[in-house]
Amino acid sequence: MIEVSIDFEKMGGLIPAVVQDERTGEILMLAFQDRAAYEKTIETKEVHFFSRSRKKLWKKGETSGNVLHVVEILADCDDDSILIKVKHNESLKACHTGARSCFFKKVL
Amino acid sequence: MIEVSIDFEKMGGLIPAVVQDERTGEILMLAFQDRAAYEKTIETKEVHFFSRSRKKLWKKGETSGNVLHVVEILADCDDDSILIKVKHNESLKACHTGARSCFFKKVL
Repeated sequence: MIEVSIDFEKMGGLIPAVVQDERTGEILMLAFQDRAAYEKTIETKEVHFFSRSRKKLWKKGETSGNVLHVVEILADCDDDSILIKVKHNESLKACHTGARSCFFKKVL
Repeated sequence: MIEVSIDFEKMGGLIPAVVQDERTGEILMLAFQDRAAYEKTIETKEVHFFSRSRKKLWKKGETSGNVLHVVEILADCDDDSILIKVKHNESLKACHTGARSCFFKKVL
């Protein structure tokens, strides 16, 4: 395992975190983590973010039940973004709209 | 097709853009786009970013040859991040380190 020291300073304390279904490869969502959310995610193996609108720690699925269970976390080459692979769950709706994935608006 | 108006204002003119191999589902990289990079990507169907270090438009692969050819672009539910699916290319090295994907550092 490579020692990883995430660079939270590059973007004012936040890093983008991409969530991917580990079995299907589907991208479910992208949100931001501060150090607390990142550490809480590693500690609990449940995905946490920093809510930019509410300015606080946010456990994904806390109210909706759509908790994301971590299988693997990878950092990128310059340590300023992460990829979180989560357990496949057929009935999961990662998006607050009720969609499985947040990425459903076709641009091109 | 859903009309999409990307929200560049939420994060000082930038949005995170995730690049995924459309055939394998592999996440290749994550970088940022300003409006110019976003529009240039749609226009040329080659992925462009905004380089935060050089503070200018950056065509991915301009010097390395690892150009990313767009197959599909999806915006997320709140229009502040995008997923770019690119053409599968076995020999592609998306990372400046020479790795296929930038996400190769195991955190968990």
